[in-house]
Amino acid sequence: MPNPLYLPELREMLAENDVAGLREFCGALHPARTVEFMDGLTAEESWNVIRHAEDYLRREIFCFFPEELQVKILESLDREEAAKLIGEMPPDDRVDLLQEMAPELVEEVLSLVPAEERRDIQRLQAYPEDTAGAVMTTEFARVSESTPVKQALDQIARQAEQLETIYYIYVLDDEGHLHGLVSARELLSATRFPDRPVGEIMERDLLTVNVSEDQEEVAAKVAKYDLLAIPVVDDEHRMLGIITHDDVIDVIAEEAVEDAYLAAAVGPLKENYLDASLYELTKKRAIWLTILFFGAIVTAVVIRRYEGILAAIPWLMPFIPLVISTGGNSGNQSAALVITALSTNDITVADWWRVVRREFAMGLLLGGLLAVFGFFCAWSLREVSAFEATVLPITLVLVVVSGTLIGSVLPLLFRRLGLDPALMSNPFVAGIIDVLGIVIYMGVVFALLGHPS
Amino acid sequence: MPNPLYLPELREMLAENDVAGLREFCGALHPARTVEFMDGLTAEESWNVIRHAEDYLRREIFCFFPEELQVKILESLDREEAAKLIGEMPPDDRVDLLQEMAPELVEEVLSLVPAEERRDIQRLQAYPEDTAGAVMTTEFARVSESTPVKQALDQIARQAEQLETIYYIYVLDDEGHLHGLVSARELLSATRFPDRPVGEIMERDLLTVNVSEDQEEVAAKVAKYDLLAIPVVDDEHRMLGIITHDDVIDVIAEEAVEDAYLAAAVGPLKENYLDASLYELTKKRAIWLTILFFGAIVTAVVIRRYEGILAAIPWLMPFIPLVISTGGNSGNQSAALVITALSTNDITVADWWRVVRREFAMGLLLGGLLAVFGFFCAWSLREVSAFEATVLPITLVLVVVSGTLIGSVLPLLFRRLGLDPALMSNPFVAGIIDVLGIVIYMGVVFALLGHPS
Repeated sequence: MPNPLYLPELREMLAENDVAGLREFCGALHPARTVEFMDGLTAEESWNVIRHAEDYLRREIFCFFPEELQVKILESLDREEAAKLIGEMPPDDRVDLLQEMAPELVEEVLSLVPAEERRDIQRLQAYPEDTAGAVMTTEFARVSESTPVKQALDQIARQAEQLETIYYIYVLDDEGHLHGLVSARELLSATRFPDRPVGEIMERDLLTVNVSEDQEEVAAKVAKYDLLAIPVVDDEHRMLGIITHDDVIDVIAEEAVEDAYLAAAVGPLKENYLDASLYELTKKRAIWLTILFFGAIVTAVVIRRYEGILAAIPWLMPFIPLVISTGGNSGNQSAALVITALSTNDITVADWWRVVRREFAMGLLLGGLLAVFGFFCAWSLREVSAFEATVLPITLVLVVVSGTLIGSVLPLLFRRLGLDPALMSNPFVAGIIDVLGIVIYMGVVFALLGHPS
Repeated sequence: MPNPLYLPELREMLAENDVAGLREFCGALHPARTVEFMDGLTAEESWNVIRHAEDYLRREIFCFFPEELQVKILESLDREEAAKLIGEMPPDDRVDLLQEMAPELVEEVLSLVPAEERRDIQRLQAYPEDTAGAVMTTEFARVSESTPVKQALDQIARQAEQLETIYYIYVLDDEGHLHGLVSARELLSATRFPDRPVGEIMERDLLTVNVSEDQEEVAAKVAKYDLLAIPVVDDEHRMLGIITHDDVIDVIAEEAVEDAYLAAAVGPLKENYLDASLYELTKKRAIWLTILFFGAIVTAVVIRRYEGILAAIPWLMPFIPLVISTGGNSGNQSAALVITALSTNDITVADWWRVVRREFAMGLLLGGLLAVFGFFCAWSLREVSAFEATVLPITLVLVVVSGTLIGSVLPLLFRRLGLDPALMSNPFVAGIIDVLGIVIYMGVVFALLGHPS
């Protein structure tokens, strides 16, 4: 929660140029909490609060600022200061930030960043979005196989302040090939033998991800193996960087939001709800809403073809929305189950036959249940005989079974074709079943009651 | 991926009772990978593979077994062995496991577990599901304030193999109150001053969670602050346990699945899709499907009330599904945006007026767009005049605006009432708008065309 109570005191310290007080403020709390206490300050004020803090604290606090504020601060600083700040930031964060800044400014600032850091930035910028390369950071603790345990510990103790995580130490050869891993825990328990080379205690069977792997798969691996970080390698098994547990949490949360949007036919948003412009939000919704609208126009055209029979047997018409929404709902359920099971790797495309059998059986059970209710609802209308009323239960069983089959097969098919199964989620399945539902309903009417005209 | 190629070799080693070979197999790979290579073995074979491994390896491999297999193994062991295995397991994992076992067996086995461990199990079992207490583990590294840095390092080096994480060391007084935290990183960089007491270098401003806090809020905190673990305290600030980054990843993934199910009207499942029984799956779907079915019956009743006018102006009827699905779709979009924004803390209930204004504006824009298409669709029918055709665009604007308002307000209202906003997701919003859509449609018809009978 933002805490506006502290702002007057901060402003007073700024006015009095109380450097000692501001430094103390910056070091007293977790950087993320410090940022909350600063909520409400302008970009200039925010910078003046943190500029005197120790290097590593300033960097950490700056990284917890909202992106908008980071951009404003960088734009307000002189080019030299901005370049210094960017030079200090973690490699993965600064690449994300540079994407949000005006390209002219980025060019000016980058020309002032040391050549080595600049090359690192350009390398990271080259990886396509949503790949391991785009999420990884290039700073990690490394030792060679021959380093003794004691010396390795000293080495990481010295690097501790600069690195994002020191809890996994990677063992690389001179060409950068990844040979093994020691955790800080193993190093600490190995201190009984301080002269033993790291190569003797390291783990050799490592889980790695390729730099071009999809971030969703990376996240699934880290989650499955309960890792703190996973190394990213190229095709020659040279180590390029690591992806840490907090990045994985961000990826999982991001993908969950994306799937929730897809399930409701909203295009993926870059910003959060209140920050996104009205135009942006409307655009993301309008595209899918229009597609679904024209799907519904097809339904209207199909219904018009049956106008004769619907006019002749008027009790059929009020049940049209019931028939199609019941099919849509059962299809949605199947789609959600299958999409979720695919994304958590509980099923693969190879399980399709088991899935189809299960969904068929569930369709029969669910359709059968609703058929009982449906029969009595139709029969309770004064003008409908028990025989005529059977139209509704038969339709419901067929529609629910169609719904479960379509809802389960389409996501599997999409995965098979290399597309995101979540594209085949709720509204799309419902749209398909709308048309099919009408055709089934009228087909049952023809079969049981014949053509009345 | 399971790798069945290794199974024959494992079975050969089992047949020959090749203890050395089996021990080597257990230590060669990451425990989760080892488990994959064993996929296909029976419970008895699996136990025989790991029983000779070193204690900590056996425990780790066992913890990566699927729950079903764990239960089978525990049931097949004699009670003493089962009690030993349970005594070794991490506190949070074993509580989850005991829940899945037959209560008589649990009682028998627990009576053989050492008293202290048994009390720990009973304490953890008492916390309500989905609270911090139910997710936490009670094993963590602790020191007192006066411990010198060097001694603290030696202490955690000794405990390294037993504890789930040694990367945060908590500073507690004799009554167990939490006073501070040193990270392994800080300890390592402080080794220049080996005699300095931990109390001087520890962080005092700690993020904690209360034992009764909801697991979703805990996960949000850890994610926001990029923590490896968060301490769990009681109302007197006594430390009870920690929740680690891998548990947080599990919680986030679990909640995402639950929300995806809710959005498709499927009750939360305990097991994954293929493991859940057909009866269980059908039950979770049938409840909501039946509720939605009776919602649709209300729609049918409402439509029947307008039978007269629908018979008199036959072109209106085919557009009924279009009107209600368009309202439902726009409502779904709003609900998904608001539910997601609430769950990521991008908005709070206090922002309701901004949300309503945005959704109203989007409703007008989206409704206006679809109104243009709708007008031409209706007008293109031979029997409809341009004046009559305006019924459809006016209806669409009103229905889309109602959809966006209902879809956004209901989740906010639910959060305000302390309920899960996700309950007000897609199918429910759609169900409400179905009825409202018909009433609006017919209202516009009456207003523009009068009562034709």
